[in-house]
Amino acid sequence: MAVARQSMREEIVEAALDRFHARGYNAAGVKDITDGAGVPKGSFYNHFASKEALAVIALERYGESRRMRDLADTSVEPLTRLRKHFEFLRDDVVGWGYKRGCMFGNFGTEITDHSETIRASVGESLRVWTDLVAGVLAEAAHAGALRTGLDPAATARLIVNAWEGTLIDARATRSPDAFASFFTVVFDTLLTPPN
Amino acid sequence: MAVARQSMREEIVEAALDRFHARGYNAAGVKDITDGAGVPKGSFYNHFASKEALAVIALERYGESRRMRDLADTSVEPLTRLRKHFEFLRDDVVGWGYKRGCMFGNFGTEITDHSETIRASVGESLRVWTDLVAGVLAEAAHAGALRTGLDPAATARLIVNAWEGTLIDARATRSPDAFASFFTVVFDTLLTPPN
Repeated sequence: MAVARQSMREEIVEAALDRFHARGYNAAGVKDITDGAGVPKGSFYNHFASKEALAVIALERYGESRRMRDLADTSVEPLTRLRKHFEFLRDDVVGWGYKRGCMFGNFGTEITDHSETIRASVGESLRVWTDLVAGVLAEAAHAGALRTGLDPAATARLIVNAWEGTLIDARATRSPDAFASFFTVVFDTLLTPPN
Repeated sequence: MAVARQSMREEIVEAALDRFHARGYNAAGVKDITDGAGVPKGSFYNHFASKEALAVIALERYGESRRMRDLADTSVEPLTRLRKHFEFLRDDVVGWGYKRGCMFGNFGTEITDHSETIRASVGESLRVWTDLVAGVLAEAAHAGALRTGLDPAATARLIVNAWEGTLIDARATRSPDAFASFFTVVFDTLLTPPN
């Protein structure tokens, strides 16, 4: 029975991650989520205090799927590592047919004004990610591979935010052009030392 | 009677702009909007085919409030003009207590996957804005005020997208820090010729 309950909770989290990502917070109802999990709607509140509490868990689960750890893999040259990170994120969105985008940005626009709990979680997700990117930039600067005079923290924040906006553009235009501008301007102009 | 009808339509558009901006698309129901306009719910469909159709009108109205025309005012030095444009947009969000953000980005994340009509409208809004920014950058390049080797179109797209992501960050953190990173990295590093 303990195993069954654990499995039901996990099935609800997995379904929530899928439904919140595909539909957004408001459009994904508790019944959509329990239907997706194949469990009775009534079982939801045995496992979660609220839809909002589940959303925070889904957001954390989403963050774990972004392969953030790869950003700290010092066996790969820093700017190559950073480029591969955003290529992985790009390929994920292209694989969804230019849909879904990033849950940090989706919850960030739809829900942060209306839930302090989700706002804190989105802010923390962006901060952790930005700190990892800043670490890569500091490594690149140390190796002399970065344009001089860049502040790693401010530049990392701009890059992460540019990525979130690029996803909005890519979803609205359903084309790779927004991604092309991101990679060209960030990697070939902003970060690269002039010849 | 014709005047009264015109006034009722306008009141619904104004209320829709406010409710969609404050709550998002799904959370702003037709009744919220007609209540905001102080008109009977039943009057809605005398004026609009659907909530989706009204959303496109509200999005256009929102675009008109962004002072895009100022980007073409050649009496102001190009990079000063661009900076003032984003300062205006920043001050608007700060004035709302770091809430609401940009309707292009809000609809872009919440609705573009689910409405072809709204997706087309968001895409067109971003394209018009990006073209205006690219025009400013081309002027700056012509005047020798821009870092050499920048592509105006790709750079404009990156800047507009970075702005949209910066708003997500600013709303999640409710602080001016995301804006500071945007202005520093875009204006003092990306666009400025090295000394």
